[in-house]
Amino acid sequence: MSRTKFNAEIIAIGSEFLHGRRLESNSIFLAEGLAKCGIEVEWKTLVGDSEKHIALALTLASRRASIVVVTGGLGSTVDDCTREAVATVTGRTLRRRPKALAALNARYASRGRRLTKAVARQASLPIGAEMLENLTGSAPGFWLEWKRSVLLALPGVSKEAQTMFETQVIPRLAARVNHPTRLKQKLLFTVGLTELQVDACLQPIIRQYPSFQLSVLASVLGVTVILRTWSSQTPDGSGEHQVSEFESLVSTVRQSLGDSVYAEDEQAMEEVVGQQLTTSSLRLALAESCTGGLIGHRLTQVAGSSAYLDRALVCYSNQAKHDLLGVPMKLLERYGAVSEPVAQSMAEGARARSRTDIGLSVTGVAGPGGGTVHKPVGLVYMGIDGPYGTVTKQFQLYGDRQDVKVRASQAALNLLRVYLLQRPAL
Amino acid sequence: MSRTKFNAEIIAIGSEFLHGRRLESNSIFLAEGLAKCGIEVEWKTLVGDSEKHIALALTLASRRASIVVVTGGLGSTVDDCTREAVATVTGRTLRRRPKALAALNARYASRGRRLTKAVARQASLPIGAEMLENLTGSAPGFWLEWKRSVLLALPGVSKEAQTMFETQVIPRLAARVNHPTRLKQKLLFTVGLTELQVDACLQPIIRQYPSFQLSVLASVLGVTVILRTWSSQTPDGSGEHQVSEFESLVSTVRQSLGDSVYAEDEQAMEEVVGQQLTTSSLRLALAESCTGGLIGHRLTQVAGSSAYLDRALVCYSNQAKHDLLGVPMKLLERYGAVSEPVAQSMAEGARARSRTDIGLSVTGVAGPGGGTVHKPVGLVYMGIDGPYGTVTKQFQLYGDRQDVKVRASQAALNLLRVYLLQRPAL
Repeated sequence: MSRTKFNAEIIAIGSEFLHGRRLESNSIFLAEGLAKCGIEVEWKTLVGDSEKHIALALTLASRRASIVVVTGGLGSTVDDCTREAVATVTGRTLRRRPKALAALNARYASRGRRLTKAVARQASLPIGAEMLENLTGSAPGFWLEWKRSVLLALPGVSKEAQTMFETQVIPRLAARVNHPTRLKQKLLFTVGLTELQVDACLQPIIRQYPSFQLSVLASVLGVTVILRTWSSQTPDGSGEHQVSEFESLVSTVRQSLGDSVYAEDEQAMEEVVGQQLTTSSLRLALAESCTGGLIGHRLTQVAGSSAYLDRALVCYSNQAKHDLLGVPMKLLERYGAVSEPVAQSMAEGARARSRTDIGLSVTGVAGPGGGTVHKPVGLVYMGIDGPYGTVTKQFQLYGDRQDVKVRASQAALNLLRVYLLQRPAL
Repeated sequence: MSRTKFNAEIIAIGSEFLHGRRLESNSIFLAEGLAKCGIEVEWKTLVGDSEKHIALALTLASRRASIVVVTGGLGSTVDDCTREAVATVTGRTLRRRPKALAALNARYASRGRRLTKAVARQASLPIGAEMLENLTGSAPGFWLEWKRSVLLALPGVSKEAQTMFETQVIPRLAARVNHPTRLKQKLLFTVGLTELQVDACLQPIIRQYPSFQLSVLASVLGVTVILRTWSSQTPDGSGEHQVSEFESLVSTVRQSLGDSVYAEDEQAMEEVVGQQLTTSSLRLALAESCTGGLIGHRLTQVAGSSAYLDRALVCYSNQAKHDLLGVPMKLLERYGAVSEPVAQSMAEGARARSRTDIGLSVTGVAGPGGGTVHKPVGLVYMGIDGPYGTVTKQFQLYGDRQDVKVRASQAALNLLRVYLLQRPAL
């Protein structure tokens, strides 16, 4: 079946990707879209705005990949030379397309502006190329069949490239890939375990499923488990067998990781917690110290979060903890702001004063300063006060100030997630 | 002078960079470090954990780059095959290094663990390669001269690669690059202007300085202007002339952009504002609504921010705005939560109730829901109450919910920055 497997190379153009200031990100949605069509990205090449370099990259890519996706270099500035490089490599000279010119004219006219010569350059495409309309910007892209490859040129601007790719490229690619091998993929996001722990837990399982691929990726938000297989859809039904085997692997892995799995596939922690709060009709108040507002920020990334997040009190000073949460000054003096009793008092104060159902608190030493022998950088206490009682927990987190903040926000949201699992069945 | 210019290619190894889940980021510090030595990155190649693909990438890179930096694939798992690929391509077979093995043994012994065969594999390096010690992890890297290239292999883990690169590679490269051309670079971060406005302002200037390169990069935080030149350090003094011309270009650009420039080079907005608050000995309280805690989060990314940030009140509900900031219910009913009078009242309430010097407020429609004809998504009001009087400002911001939040946080911090510029001279 591997004969029918298509492979792809992504070429991203832009000197900004080489000089260390900007990371190329179009390849995220490109790789995911290609994978859905059964096409695996095997190479990614980044070159500057140099016609010579783009031409070399195109030549090499067309030798090793059946689908070559180029992003960038289609604009109107002098730097933009993808069209010229494609013309040089393929021998298909550029020709002005009336349809492309009309679209540009319409776009500019609607804004009361006239087309300049530089902008009009975008309407020239290699002979034989099919134009891909730009529904959200000006530069059109194109689809060109050359030798044994399909060559796709998309704009560099993410939203333009993504719209073009999803509306015009994916449907064609899916049709082109006949008996395809398709990617089946499952992502499981865990928190509270190390990469080694996850690996040790999963290696014995994966050994029983030799045709599946396991990746374990650690990040500051936790450890992600990726299970994948390329299943072939053949008339003999072997594809179906592989799919059911994959499901069985996924459920075995899910079971052995247990409660540590907080989300699957596309979901973020803040969405999971948001859904739990919505389902339980519970409203939340936050009392943040070392996280500085990050938990509120994360929860409010989700549309509709105003339905369950009432307020977040970021209390950096002791005075603020006393004023806003009613933490007794005596408690602060006796135990210090970073302590279990203060975390508990903060959670209780947040809940009581805001008259919400749940209070969640975080207090810790984010660093780099402020650590002591007994209270080192990374020491964080959290508390919850809510309908299922009170919980406090101590964490020793690692990394620099930014890492400690992110890890603390993730641990706090996870504490809340596990707390909300106690919701009694109806 | 271009004869003496070295060029580099970065090869990043890891299937995770191709499958759309993770962006490769080591190239950021690699490109910046190389630039400081006068070496420009011209290509970046990303390949999976395949010995065949790594070998091909190495072969191509050594033909077009004088410095080839490989990151990843040096670990102890079966996937890791960078050492083998280098050995195959260069013909330098792998040989176990006693020094490398001793370092691994010591590292494992200190944790009470014994070396496994898989881990010991990391001690084998190509013949002729010089070992680069791993001070923060286990896998050593290496430096290998091959044909006309220097081939550097570094671990994939960022902190390990960065330490190794900065302590062991940069000094050698700097020594190796004799009469170097060095990169002079200036970054100016602006806010409140569009890419087109910045471009229109700077094109006439840059035309007078043909030997310098101008890039204008837009992001959700604003528009960044990058000015660069490769100056050669030659005995005839032409390099010095170029440097002084560069300084003159930078100051012309700075002047024409004026107050819109909020930071230069490495600085972030939150650091700039933090320094202003520190210098003026002013303490701040935040009243956030649609930003959900993001302004607090950003300010507290800076170490020592507890000295000037007292608290942040994230008031998502009207009740919270009333309870915590004393915004009159009548005002909320009459003008709505997203209005200039409410923004002003929030700022005043934050300042008065926290007894700080300044109150900064933000209230707006982050979307995607909640917009109306008169108050569309992206409409945001901000207010400041402080020693130099009261300011309010209205913004119409664009993008999705996440974009609106980031743009609002940036506009609010910038409003505060400009407000603090009023500080009377001593």
